[in-house]
Amino acid sequence: MRFCSSCGQPVAKMIPKGDERERFVCLGCATIHYVNPKIVVGALCVHEDRILLCRRAIEPRVGFWTLPAGFMELGETAEEGAVREAMEEANAKIAIDGLLAIYSIKRIDQVQIFYHARLLDPAVSPGVESQAVMLVGFDAIPWDELAFPSVEWALRRAIELRQQARAG
Amino acid sequence: MRFCSSCGQPVAKMIPKGDERERFVCLGCATIHYVNPKIVVGALCVHEDRILLCRRAIEPRVGFWTLPAGFMELGETAEEGAVREAMEEANAKIAIDGLLAIYSIKRIDQVQIFYHARLLDPAVSPGVESQAVMLVGFDAIPWDELAFPSVEWALRRAIELRQQARAG
Ligand SMILES: [Zn+2]
Ligand SMILES: [Zn+2]
Repeated sequence: MRFCSSCGQPVAKMIPKGDERERFVCLGCATIHYVNPKIVVGALCVHEDRILLCRRAIEPRVGFWTLPAGFMELGETAEEGAVREAMEEANAKIAIDGLLAIYSIKRIDQVQIFYHARLLDPAVSPGVESQAVMLVGFDAIPWDELAFPSVEWALRRAIELRQQARAG
Repeated sequence: MRFCSSCGQPVAKMIPKGDERERFVCLGCATIHYVNPKIVVGALCVHEDRILLCRRAIEPRVGFWTLPAGFMELGETAEEGAVREAMEEANAKIAIDGLLAIYSIKRIDQVQIFYHARLLDPAVSPGVESQAVMLVGFDAIPWDELAFPSVEWALRRAIELRQQARAG
């Protein structure tokens, strides 16, 4: 950030009065511009004991498999965002069943929220951000071809919860 | 948003190629400036069956009671943010026990994440953003003087979970 989005004058990093952190403060109009972590929302979508995975068509990690997920937008709930991403990436119509996990990823200043979801229709197909989509059994997850650590964590957590449910 | 924070030229709302939503796009350098929901992190902090509440010293809702909570900062996890807010608002040293609830509040584009926490020391005192702090029994919550709906939801959810734990 180099310029004020309100007035176009240069900003400088300084600690505002009453604050404890450096912020971008406008040298013209004194507006404080806060920068905050971003929210990613996604879903583990299941149909008859198989999970929906999408092979990424965009950077980063083109060609690797992911759960449908993406940045939460203004004007939606986290659940609505996860439903939207499943539709955008896999033309998948889903219903959210509950929270699966939350991961804070400090290195990239993201909070990623994953939900349990059901596929309402097994007919899925790649959206523009996907090269391919598949419904894969829990025992056939391509662990070595997953796009991001959080995708692996969410899948392992889902498997753990599934085993607990079967045991209990 | 009126000006580009990268180059200082004016921005205009338009739908970028491959996107489906209006974004702020710089007329000078073509940077797309995304605006995303913000994350609030807070904690229901318990000590010997009493809950920590803070009476707000700042707008909005000055004088009303809240759970310690605030905007998540860059460079921290959601849990670390909740720990920091308890320290800032109530000089409270806490340990996070787990997730209590997540609320998406579309009107203000916030996702609020509340944790269960334990007070590690019952000595609490108002920080600069609080007029007062108190440890209050579950049966003495000032329901008519709570600052925000989400504070009431989080408290009611905690009471519900507590009753379920006692029943089960
Ligand atoms: Zn300015
Ligand atoms: Zn620009």
